[in-house]
Amino acid sequence: MSRPLPDADYEIRVRDSFARQPAMQLIGATLLRVEPGRVDVELAVRDDLTQQHGFVHGGIVGMIADSAGGYAAFTLMPAGASVLTVEYKINLLAAARGKALVASAEVVKAGRTLSLSRVDVYGIDGGRETLVATMQQTLMVMHDMADTRQ
Amino acid sequence: MSRPLPDADYEIRVRDSFARQPAMQLIGATLLRVEPGRVDVELAVRDDLTQQHGFVHGGIVGMIADSAGGYAAFTLMPAGASVLTVEYKINLLAAARGKALVASAEVVKAGRTLSLSRVDVYGIDGGRETLVATMQQTLMVMHDMADTRQ
Amino acid sequence: MSRPLPDADYEIRVRDSFARQPAMQLIGATLLRVEPGRVDVELAVRDDLTQQHGFVHGGIVGMIADSAGGYAAFTLMPAGASVLTVEYKINLLAAARGKALVASAEVVKAGRTLSLSRVDVYGIDGGRETLVATMQQTLMVMHDMADTRQ
Amino acid sequence: MSRPLPDADYEIRVRDSFARQPAMQLIGATLLRVEPGRVDVELAVRDDLTQQHGFVHGGIVGMIADSAGGYAAFTLMPAGASVLTVEYKINLLAAARGKALVASAEVVKAGRTLSLSRVDVYGIDGGRETLVATMQQTLMVMHDMADTRQ
Repeated sequence: MSRPLPDADYEIRVRDSFARQPAMQLIGATLLRVEPGRVDVELAVRDDLTQQHGFVHGGIVGMIADSAGGYAAFTLMPAGASVLTVEYKINLLAAARGKALVASAEVVKAGRTLSLSRVDVYGIDGGRETLVATMQQTLMVMHDMADTRQ
Repeated sequence: MSRPLPDADYEIRVRDSFARQPAMQLIGATLLRVEPGRVDVELAVRDDLTQQHGFVHGGIVGMIADSAGGYAAFTLMPAGASVLTVEYKINLLAAARGKALVASAEVVKAGRTLSLSRVDVYGIDGGRETLVATMQQTLMVMHDMADTRQ
Repeated sequence: MSRPLPDADYEIRVRDSFARQPAMQLIGATLLRVEPGRVDVELAVRDDLTQQHGFVHGGIVGMIADSAGGYAAFTLMPAGASVLTVEYKINLLAAARGKALVASAEVVKAGRTLSLSRVDVYGIDGGRETLVATMQQTLMVMHDMADTRQ
Repeated sequence: MSRPLPDADYEIRVRDSFARQPAMQLIGATLLRVEPGRVDVELAVRDDLTQQHGFVHGGIVGMIADSAGGYAAFTLMPAGASVLTVEYKINLLAAARGKALVASAEVVKAGRTLSLSRVDVYGIDGGRETLVATMQQTLMVMHDMADTRQ
């Protein structure tokens, strides 16, 4: 694990940015843990998030994993930079069900230009956790791009 | 391109299944073309689908690509089977903006157990099309699983 | 981590199969650890394995990672089955150099039909280890295919 | 397809760089077509390139696909730059056999920092071609790195 020292205001920057994402509000995703190189995103399971079998849509599983991994990388980026997802690959391992899903992201490498995050998504039901998906994701530091609407 | 003959009712099966996906209704995605091995899904761009820069969230781009690719594979599966996404990998190539996005999927190989789809997502603005993402996706035929809620 | 009980002869099956891979002999890769769900493959760095910058070719890094991940999954498959790589995704994180590379694989999920492995590749130089690549890989159990030449 | 005008000497740069890759000589891979944004790499099938079933090792299929895709991107990079593979994802679709394999790469997007290539690998046997693998690959332009040993 290679981690630069985070900018002092990393948590504020992450929480502010997340709050400016209408798509996260649409699906009801919320930020849990925000630590240097680690971010968890929670999603309460709702009927309007499901696919034809009644489980959470794989694309929505991808959405919260993409968000968690991107913000995990963002915690280690310099103030004034913005984060962009270059690409991700996700394996869907089990039906996404339960009371809630939690996407738990960790930065594997934080580079000058590119970062790599790994994200596990769990289905939570009472005390029981099931691994429903795992993602490997490449992020890019945008040094000249503010993290706001242009 | 390796393609078995599709089941006669493939289009009805695909349109019925798509209509049973609350997640597609939540984001306002609709089915356009449904042909053997080819499916297009359209998404009208809305403000509540965006991320912090005002572009459509990368996870939502992934959702419509996942749907288009999965249903493209489903058109070539036998009646009575169901389709499951095993994994996908998506590269986000340009800001997802415009009036609408169209995810255009094509089956590369339709196997007995596994299929492979390739999906390009375009941003449409007037007569102008921009490639915003491309996906490579592995699907599984579930021979013993009806395409409905359990 | 979901792991079935391995077949008693899993280590013999893996070591026999690895020894039947001429491609592994061509590059000089050897098997280190073989445990249920975990396999390490080592590669002594040689000049004829490099690319134009003098580092080990990214494709060869992929070869040993693919092998380690496949055999990690194979340890948990029933006797009489064979293992096939469905797909893999690898991020190359640092120049692959040192005295040796070690690809260290772990099974994330061992399913009835499909398994998922995660592989980290390290460059080893004296006591120093550098993460040079990480892979996420989907494997298939071939129940009706002997692990030998047909 | 977004393609800048290639540097005039792109073909010389690609052929010189390929010739400096000992790993390509080890497996016997050769360059066929080199055009702006398109490169084909051929591999004569040999027994020492196979895995335990007697087919070409999936990692070697990955090697030639990685090379073809990287050099396809390199044709569109400025003189004085070098190309680095960031990551790739490959699906193995059929047993890699025949007299030869050909990895045929095409650039999907050539960006200032990152490029995307798509590569199909065919098994060739007489007049018959079989698609054995397909890759989606992210490359990076290294503006400050000569394409030689350091």
